[in-house]
Amino acid sequence: MRISDLGEFGLIQLVQEWTRQSDSDTGPDASSVYQTVVDNGDDGAAVTFLRDRVTEVYTTDTMVDGIHFTSETTPWRDLGWKAIASNVSDVAAMGATPALALVTLGLPAHTLVDDIKELYAGMNEICREFGARIIGGDMVRSPVGFITVALTGIASAEPMVRTAARPGHLIGVTGSVGGSAGGLRAMLQATGDRGPSMDRLTGAHRRPRPHVTEGQTLVANGVVSAMDVSDGLADDLGKLCAASGVAAVIWADKVPAESALKSVFSEDWLDLALYGGEDYVLLFTAPPEVMAAVIDGLPRGAAVIGEVLDGEPGAVTVLDADGNPRLRAGAGWDHFS
Amino acid sequence: MRISDLGEFGLIQLVQEWTRQSDSDTGPDASSVYQTVVDNGDDGAAVTFLRDRVTEVYTTDTMVDGIHFTSETTPWRDLGWKAIASNVSDVAAMGATPALALVTLGLPAHTLVDDIKELYAGMNEICREFGARIIGGDMVRSPVGFITVALTGIASAEPMVRTAARPGHLIGVTGSVGGSAGGLRAMLQATGDRGPSMDRLTGAHRRPRPHVTEGQTLVANGVVSAMDVSDGLADDLGKLCAASGVAAVIWADKVPAESALKSVFSEDWLDLALYGGEDYVLLFTAPPEVMAAVIDGLPRGAAVIGEVLDGEPGAVTVLDADGNPRLRAGAGWDHFS
Repeated sequence: MRISDLGEFGLIQLVQEWTRQSDSDTGPDASSVYQTVVDNGDDGAAVTFLRDRVTEVYTTDTMVDGIHFTSETTPWRDLGWKAIASNVSDVAAMGATPALALVTLGLPAHTLVDDIKELYAGMNEICREFGARIIGGDMVRSPVGFITVALTGIASAEPMVRTAARPGHLIGVTGSVGGSAGGLRAMLQATGDRGPSMDRLTGAHRRPRPHVTEGQTLVANGVVSAMDVSDGLADDLGKLCAASGVAAVIWADKVPAESALKSVFSEDWLDLALYGGEDYVLLFTAPPEVMAAVIDGLPRGAAVIGEVLDGEPGAVTVLDADGNPRLRAGAGWDHFS
Repeated sequence: MRISDLGEFGLIQLVQEWTRQSDSDTGPDASSVYQTVVDNGDDGAAVTFLRDRVTEVYTTDTMVDGIHFTSETTPWRDLGWKAIASNVSDVAAMGATPALALVTLGLPAHTLVDDIKELYAGMNEICREFGARIIGGDMVRSPVGFITVALTGIASAEPMVRTAARPGHLIGVTGSVGGSAGGLRAMLQATGDRGPSMDRLTGAHRRPRPHVTEGQTLVANGVVSAMDVSDGLADDLGKLCAASGVAAVIWADKVPAESALKSVFSEDWLDLALYGGEDYVLLFTAPPEVMAAVIDGLPRGAAVIGEVLDGEPGAVTVLDADGNPRLRAGAGWDHFS
């Protein structure tokens, strides 16, 4: 069987099974130093150092030329920003703050040195802004360009996880969605449109701002269930629900679509908001009283968008304003299809 | 200018300069939790957690299909082993023990699921053997296969570094060299030779055994200057010397070439030993009295092979048994040439 037949989700499940076999014999040095608090399968993994009770979070994310970006839609400096941003977003989803980055570049031999300089300029910008630091990495020749970032984070509390959503929880999102996908589509369609709405969408695609502060606000208010939105709101909610063994409904009319979307894509703005991807906001669930306490303190267009239910694990139903199921017009991002 | 004109070393120097710009503003959370003890440019980076004084080491290494391996010379299970091994070796070079691994796979959609299963079987084998654990990762579609591993290590003492070699130090190596390069060449030449020597060389190429125990022995004996041999003994010694601002001589007749090399490659076994690469033994320097105390306690063919000198930083001269300079027949591995 080829991995394209199995799909991303199926392959990830197999790999989690296979890697469990490496679990048994952690070295004696390590187990006397920390304990694992979040294992394989979440936004990141996390260990808590035994003596000073600091929790360190680990995540990694990769972008491949022609698959996850093109130089037409993402200039080198923005690519550097985004490669770090997707990792910062994973750290944010656990309620941690970004710390140390390892940057690996796979580069064709004809790559221009000035382009790599721009790439690092973009990485430096976001590192400065979010308190991260590039501490090492690797550079190799490759027929196709790729960039892999591994990032640590520091948390003072127990990390939020994907496995803690429970029936009766409300579902929140920390900011507006769909802007990045809208920006990408507008650039690919090359409509020639200009103006503030286009700038907003292009900016959402090229310079996403991970919700680190929001993640810490969630933790401070007792939220324990969260993940970041990278593959599309509905799709990622499905992953969160699958990890928690629950189902969910999304109230479509409550989804905070990026404001510029409706003017540029008057027909399918809602599909872009629900299924777009690369939003890098946080999706979280909490009991109604916790949700009520936290939602108004979030600064960037947060909203309550649905409810966690008993049901087939991972099943997500989108309801329209009349409470009727809405047919899914798009599909989430599958890395191997 | 293209990176192929600049070369790997030149590009690495530039990147280190560019990333220094991200250094200034490490977040307040991080700096209250740990301090950086080894920065960008060594086998790995390292931070020491302030309260429990544990030092955590971070390293990453990448292998690209067709550049660093082929499925003909490295079966999937061995590829898994090697992808972890090169990182374990970096951790060993700092005197630390391996801990947590993040594994990123870039895979063409036609990749067979069974091959990925084999890959993880090989990774699990080496993780079990060296006390490491796969705690997360990423999988993406890519037109060319690649595997990136990021690995942490735990050290109870100050890590050994590349910057601490001093004139008057003797140079030691913790084991024999050239076996991996010999094995690769024998496979590529497809001589059809069989027998124990060929098995030894093929095994050295496919299943290198990083010198974790040796690294800890070095640290315990007060060695502070070390790196692992991945790009070839002479070439890596040049890097260590450049980082330390010193020169060196290698006494060719003291280099512990893998025993099977001479029988299979009677003419250029010494070139393979000096310039071969992927040996994953440790190269270290120490004052004569420290060297005398440590060298006999190393179990796998360790030897004193040369001396650190004042001179042009990074200049390495190979001397033959009569003390005459030996012309360099090979060159180290440049990732972009």
